[in-house]
Amino acid sequence: MSGRVHGIGVGPGDPELLTLKALRLLREAAVVAYPATEDGESLAREIVAPHLPGGQREIPIPIPIQGGPFPDEGVYDRAAEQVLAAVAEGAAVVVLCEGDPFFYGSFLYLYARLADRCEVAVVPGVSSLMACAAVLGAPLAARNDALSVLPATLDETVLRRRIEAADAVALIKVGRHLAKVRGVLEDLGLAEGALYIERATMTTERVLPLDQAPAPAPYFSMVLVHRRGEAWR
Amino acid sequence: MSGRVHGIGVGPGDPELLTLKALRLLREAAVVAYPATEDGESLAREIVAPHLPGGQREIPIPIPIQGGPFPDEGVYDRAAEQVLAAVAEGAAVVVLCEGDPFFYGSFLYLYARLADRCEVAVVPGVSSLMACAAVLGAPLAARNDALSVLPATLDETVLRRRIEAADAVALIKVGRHLAKVRGVLEDLGLAEGALYIERATMTTERVLPLDQAPAPAPYFSMVLVHRRGEAWR
Repeated sequence: MSGRVHGIGVGPGDPELLTLKALRLLREAAVVAYPATEDGESLAREIVAPHLPGGQREIPIPIPIQGGPFPDEGVYDRAAEQVLAAVAEGAAVVVLCEGDPFFYGSFLYLYARLADRCEVAVVPGVSSLMACAAVLGAPLAARNDALSVLPATLDETVLRRRIEAADAVALIKVGRHLAKVRGVLEDLGLAEGALYIERATMTTERVLPLDQAPAPAPYFSMVLVHRRGEAWR
Repeated sequence: MSGRVHGIGVGPGDPELLTLKALRLLREAAVVAYPATEDGESLAREIVAPHLPGGQREIPIPIPIQGGPFPDEGVYDRAAEQVLAAVAEGAAVVVLCEGDPFFYGSFLYLYARLADRCEVAVVPGVSSLMACAAVLGAPLAARNDALSVLPATLDETVLRRRIEAADAVALIKVGRHLAKVRGVLEDLGLAEGALYIERATMTTERVLPLDQAPAPAPYFSMVLVHRRGEAWR
């Protein structure tokens, strides 16, 4: 008997943005793994909490602070061993992933360690990229638009050059880089049309004018810009 | 009494990739609008067909052939009037959108005509971007990657320049532009690592080596490229 692993996207925050497939797999799972802080808090687990059947075994994966340095790879080595042990016992394992598993998530470091050693399937989820646009009422891109997703962690010069080259831009991982992002957008004359949102679809969601956005911003914040002002023009 | 409109993302094809929120709104809707061919066929409606409660009024929106020229704007003017008439009668209207409503969808032309005239909320869906990556087992982007979404409809020179500048690339709307895309990727030495997929998560889904991909490709096809080979390196 051998188990299997599903990496499931649990969406951006609203528990109702879980897919039917993720819900089914969650209910069938004997083991549920998820990223957590070193204190054991887990946004991914919170999102699915209303749907957890109870009785499942849990594997929290302690990821160092978000927005901080990239974690010690040993965290993923140890988590992979725990998951593989559960699979060897025949368990159906789900790994919860905030948003979508393959869009800048920590899941892919675990995936890299599992994919050659057991059956791993990925269930796509609603990404924060689409959730932010939906809440802001701002279409991301249309027709022949080139859409660039840019981590705000990039160097200022690189960021400026990439924003200049794009039609539509989503700046992710804004956090402590808010002031830099705002400066670049002001220099390029794009600050006025830029949209700031934090924690889209969570109960703590906030939309603010860019010049009133907090610096540092929360980790789960995004700035959307369209160079024509609106995607449908 | 006044109705309201929800634009709901129905995901990339698998009816199980609908969100719980989209399902609830669909079941509550008195009127369901959706893009359709001039013959009345509708992928968006097919995706939700297993979930339709029956008895709802339907508004097909006849969009000219996908991949063809951009439609006569009158199509959206007329659809907007039909939706507004239903809202004025107090109906809960949902507009079905393939994938996500704000990611290169036709919904945004309708949204542009409705947003100032009635309450329109958008429910994000699982996008083909994330679905293709999930099926291919290929993470889109990680860490400081700049991810570029590029319509294959772009001019060859523009396409080449944009691909050269990105870390990770998703080429969408491949269709009749497959040969051009393949040529550019070959010139840049990226063809070997490129992944081709068509109709991700649909029953007709196919993954092929890029050099065996059909030219023209189907409208719902995508090519993913990562310049480092893999997002987690």
